[in-house]
Amino acid sequence: MARTCLAVVLAAGDATRMKSSKSKVLHPVGNLPLISHVTRAAAAAGVTKIALVVGRNAEQVTKAASAGIAVPVTPVEQTERKGTGHAVLMARDVIAEGYDDVVVLYGDAPLIDPNSLAAATSERQKGADVVVLGFRAQDPTGYGRLLEREGELVAIREHKDASVEELEVDFCNGGIITFSGAKAIDLLEAIGNDNAKGEYYLTDIVEIARAEGLKCVAIEAPEEDMMGCNTRAELAEIEQVWQSRARQAAMLSGVSMVDPASVFLSHDTVLGSDVLIEPNVWFGPGVRVGAGALIHGFSHLEGADIGANAVIGPFARLRPGTELGERAKVGNFCEIKKARVGDGAKVNHLSYIGDAVVGADANIGAGTITCNYDGQNKHLTEIGSGAFIGSNSSLVAPVRIGEGAYVGSGSVVTMDVPDDALAIARARQETKPGRAQRLRDKIAAIKALKKKAVTEPDT
Amino acid sequence: MARTCLAVVLAAGDATRMKSSKSKVLHPVGNLPLISHVTRAAAAAGVTKIALVVGRNAEQVTKAASAGIAVPVTPVEQTERKGTGHAVLMARDVIAEGYDDVVVLYGDAPLIDPNSLAAATSERQKGADVVVLGFRAQDPTGYGRLLEREGELVAIREHKDASVEELEVDFCNGGIITFSGAKAIDLLEAIGNDNAKGEYYLTDIVEIARAEGLKCVAIEAPEEDMMGCNTRAELAEIEQVWQSRARQAAMLSGVSMVDPASVFLSHDTVLGSDVLIEPNVWFGPGVRVGAGALIHGFSHLEGADIGANAVIGPFARLRPGTELGERAKVGNFCEIKKARVGDGAKVNHLSYIGDAVVGADANIGAGTITCNYDGQNKHLTEIGSGAFIGSNSSLVAPVRIGEGAYVGSGSVVTMDVPDDALAIARARQETKPGRAQRLRDKIAAIKALKKKAVTEPDT
Amino acid sequence: MARTCLAVVLAAGDATRMKSSKSKVLHPVGNLPLISHVTRAAAAAGVTKIALVVGRNAEQVTKAASAGIAVPVTPVEQTERKGTGHAVLMARDVIAEGYDDVVVLYGDAPLIDPNSLAAATSERQKGADVVVLGFRAQDPTGYGRLLEREGELVAIREHKDASVEELEVDFCNGGIITFSGAKAIDLLEAIGNDNAKGEYYLTDIVEIARAEGLKCVAIEAPEEDMMGCNTRAELAEIEQVWQSRARQAAMLSGVSMVDPASVFLSHDTVLGSDVLIEPNVWFGPGVRVGAGALIHGFSHLEGADIGANAVIGPFARLRPGTELGERAKVGNFCEIKKARVGDGAKVNHLSYIGDAVVGADANIGAGTITCNYDGQNKHLTEIGSGAFIGSNSSLVAPVRIGEGAYVGSGSVVTMDVPDDALAIARARQETKPGRAQRLRDKIAAIKALKKKAVTEPDT
Repeated sequence: MARTCLAVVLAAGDATRMKSSKSKVLHPVGNLPLISHVTRAAAAAGVTKIALVVGRNAEQVTKAASAGIAVPVTPVEQTERKGTGHAVLMARDVIAEGYDDVVVLYGDAPLIDPNSLAAATSERQKGADVVVLGFRAQDPTGYGRLLEREGELVAIREHKDASVEELEVDFCNGGIITFSGAKAIDLLEAIGNDNAKGEYYLTDIVEIARAEGLKCVAIEAPEEDMMGCNTRAELAEIEQVWQSRARQAAMLSGVSMVDPASVFLSHDTVLGSDVLIEPNVWFGPGVRVGAGALIHGFSHLEGADIGANAVIGPFARLRPGTELGERAKVGNFCEIKKARVGDGAKVNHLSYIGDAVVGADANIGAGTITCNYDGQNKHLTEIGSGAFIGSNSSLVAPVRIGEGAYVGSGSVVTMDVPDDALAIARARQETKPGRAQRLRDKIAAIKALKKKAVTEPDT
Repeated sequence: MARTCLAVVLAAGDATRMKSSKSKVLHPVGNLPLISHVTRAAAAAGVTKIALVVGRNAEQVTKAASAGIAVPVTPVEQTERKGTGHAVLMARDVIAEGYDDVVVLYGDAPLIDPNSLAAATSERQKGADVVVLGFRAQDPTGYGRLLEREGELVAIREHKDASVEELEVDFCNGGIITFSGAKAIDLLEAIGNDNAKGEYYLTDIVEIARAEGLKCVAIEAPEEDMMGCNTRAELAEIEQVWQSRARQAAMLSGVSMVDPASVFLSHDTVLGSDVLIEPNVWFGPGVRVGAGALIHGFSHLEGADIGANAVIGPFARLRPGTELGERAKVGNFCEIKKARVGDGAKVNHLSYIGDAVVGADANIGAGTITCNYDGQNKHLTEIGSGAFIGSNSSLVAPVRIGEGAYVGSGSVVTMDVPDDALAIARARQETKPGRAQRLRDKIAAIKALKKKAVTEPDT
Repeated sequence: MARTCLAVVLAAGDATRMKSSKSKVLHPVGNLPLISHVTRAAAAAGVTKIALVVGRNAEQVTKAASAGIAVPVTPVEQTERKGTGHAVLMARDVIAEGYDDVVVLYGDAPLIDPNSLAAATSERQKGADVVVLGFRAQDPTGYGRLLEREGELVAIREHKDASVEELEVDFCNGGIITFSGAKAIDLLEAIGNDNAKGEYYLTDIVEIARAEGLKCVAIEAPEEDMMGCNTRAELAEIEQVWQSRARQAAMLSGVSMVDPASVFLSHDTVLGSDVLIEPNVWFGPGVRVGAGALIHGFSHLEGADIGANAVIGPFARLRPGTELGERAKVGNFCEIKKARVGDGAKVNHLSYIGDAVVGADANIGAGTITCNYDGQNKHLTEIGSGAFIGSNSSLVAPVRIGEGAYVGSGSVVTMDVPDDALAIARARQETKPGRAQRLRDKIAAIKALKKKAVTEPDT
């Protein structure tokens, strides 16, 4: 029978140094809140339930923590700040439900690897009562040291209390502790607050367990996995590690990035094989890219489904609700929103296509705009397959351009155009010989009269 | 009574390796000339006067050095290049005015911290005659070493003259020296040029002072603070350090940056709390951003005042003279220049708004252009609050669109539109059934006739 | 008489870990295939001929390897994978033509410096029979160590076979080996495959040569020079090194880059002196920039010739066939393709200029579009010098706007405009007092009726 495990996730921490109007754990990394990274990792590691210790923004934090996972999340409120040991005990009722293992996680440390949690559980199975996750620090200054003897963890020594010899130890406490569910409440209640700050420290659990003859061990994970976040600068560092890992994974799966450091991915970005990404591309949430697509630089993509071998950008903006067919092209200075663009269709230059359906192989000329908004409502523009929309046209929705239809450049189309019909809506050209010269003379005369008003540079 | 201090700023250096047509100290970091960083630091440290030793581009250098500070700047010309000791003596007349302290600074080393200068003055107050600012070098190779004994600086030893033991010293000369104003001229005149290059080295001042029984000390600052600039590559390195510090300061004050390394700040950028900045944003000079604003990526901002909770970009360009109200939105592929955009107004797509006033809650449709230039003059466009400008409209200035007025899509508006009026200026649509097919046949026939002329790819 | 040298370039390697549908050596760095970097370096070092050992995509690889160099390239096929020693012997017939020197290069290691190859040849001249190019490794783990005694190379020791003492050696085998052409075939045939993998290792050549009393030496080059590429992540690392070197070279030649790391250069980018490049600029193949030009950020340039003192961007896209005169300006959200823009001409905002000739000092208003494509053919737009094109105009090609001509804003120009003439093609404005208010009421009524249909946010 599988073991049961309760994850107690501490998510009530103050965000004073974040200087933020919202809870620290709601700040995003890879466009997903910190807290979601943690609960998703717990779920991936196979925990049975999550007890979420919440403070500020309790409702939103609980919502974010629960999203995207099947594991039930029980919020418990923490009203006082008395240390980690005290915080974990806020979940006493949930712990009392009885689990084989209890693991304590931190809502502001999103890089935790589910495999590390599984490794801790495995140590529990092998007989350890308390398992502490540690890391080899590049510079251990300030961290609690994990002191081991004959394969067992004998103490977590705070930096300030360490002997010269102990200061040489680079194996440090990462904070994540897994322990026996059966003994959890006894151990937690034994933690005291007889220290300088009068706080209850979860780390005391090792000393307490040892005193009762229980077995403690430490296991190792990379230092980055345990990075926590107290300032926006640290948040940016965590983002950087997360991005770096996501980019590496994408490249190893067959995606090319000319300059990985300038490509920003979201937690749910899906990239097909042989996708090529130029420098400076931003993937917001909800983007899927089909195999062989080329994403030129300076593209800003969000909520878009991009077909195989499509070509995007440079300077393309895809907004939520964009669906591009295979070999579709969206070129420079084009915005697509809530629109389906068919296979092989082209929107190459300076266009806004919103609330629209564009048929296969249609060609949308430069400067085309779907006038989808009348000030209060949005309306649909339909463009048939193989249609040709001349440059600088305005399509006033609701309107339908038929298959194979042709719209003359500069037209304002307000009425439907049947299949294979030609629509044109523009004024006749009048040409007045010599008039430009007279106009210039006139403008110059006016300019002379009101010289003072003209101070800006010629732009 | 406060001490008086003269800063002698050496700004006459050649820029041979910069390969530049202008003086090295006029090159910018954080969009402020190098020399301005130095004189502003001196001013912030409380100096009484600045003697500016100038060569090339003397007038512009003096102007840049004086801008933005209340401290008087006296330029003195340096016509010959005979070493730093000689250069400082160009300011002999100013030094002779009599100051408690004289500090020598370098116009190409802009990262100096005013606190370090204050620390040097403090050492002077405590009895030191000469105070040298040093740094602990990661790699001291090539630097002069600061040799100390019993808390005093006994020599600055050039790398090439150092003993094996002295080469182990990592405390290096940063070049910035503060000394007694009363003894300044005597000390400087005692510097000789009996060396390989025949130059007068300011660093000799330590040896000379010691020989006269004066007290020399060295104080420490970070290595980066003393970075100087001889090539454009070094200029880029200094820019990087400066940017990194500016970003950290912004983040610690409550600004979020997803990717700090891709955000470029100017010396005068002002960012409110809880501002969120996506990757790839450029702040040119003169930008202020109100609290809670969101700056999407790929935005290029300059001379703009952005209201609280405004939303900018992606792909927005704000040019000098832009004033955006609270909750205003400027979206993709929009350029704003010398224009006031009211609270809650929206310029969301592909628009150029220049020389204009846009009222609160007005909605500017995609592709709208203010035709502000007639070839010689710029004219004003006024758009009343709550007005709705249909997509792809051209507003030919000078023109006024009234409050609550409505302009039909694709209109060219040349005359004022009263409040709550509707203006429309577009041709009637003509639709010709079956004509598109015939057109295609005709084009294909022409194409067949002149195949040779068509060699470019379909774009 | 000059020495003759054959370069054997191994370019048949599998690309399994690249997860790519094409040969590894065709992937680009600096927009040039890896293989081209290698053959160009060989050509620059003065080799007489190149024997190209090919496998996958043989034809394309040979074509890329031959492009841009005068040295003849002879492809030889490798059908089996039996190790580097075996691969070099595929070129047996070419080697047998008789060369003073034979050098073995790798098609996936593009950073090799021609000077290192020349240095190896020089060692051959001084009497060495085999010259191995090595590097001092930051972390030598895994590399073969170069063991030297009295100035000679005595062995290449694989990491796994090295003694504790030998593991301390940080001088590592870079793989590139130059040896006597006269002895080449004998040495190569002596290589056996009596090892764990049953492969023929080129590195055995040292041992074999020593056994025959020949002289082997090792020379040193930077570790980066020998970086090879097995994954797309490694390809990105090589790109980063290449870019970093190209940027440094540009800056030292007098180009300013505010943030070098965000500027992407191509192998053939040519930048004049005092060119200033803001952050985030992408140079695709074929760009030349004249002296004093300013390239604002977020610009995407390809196949463009930019005149001296021109100003480009921000947000400019120049496509192949763009020729800009001196002081020309191409501003934000403008695309230029296959067009010549004269001295001092301006295309400042939101324009598409394709298949066009724009005369000197012409002013192209915001939103101007050359309608160059009729669905099947491209046509030319000619704009005379000093012409003024009003904003939001559509120029329907083929069409000619005369010198000094003036096109009214919002016009659709379909017929030629003579010099100094005025053309206007837009509808009369109709203004209907109070109608906007009635329209709003009507829209609101409709909205109330079909509330359900309107769910998208106001955008």
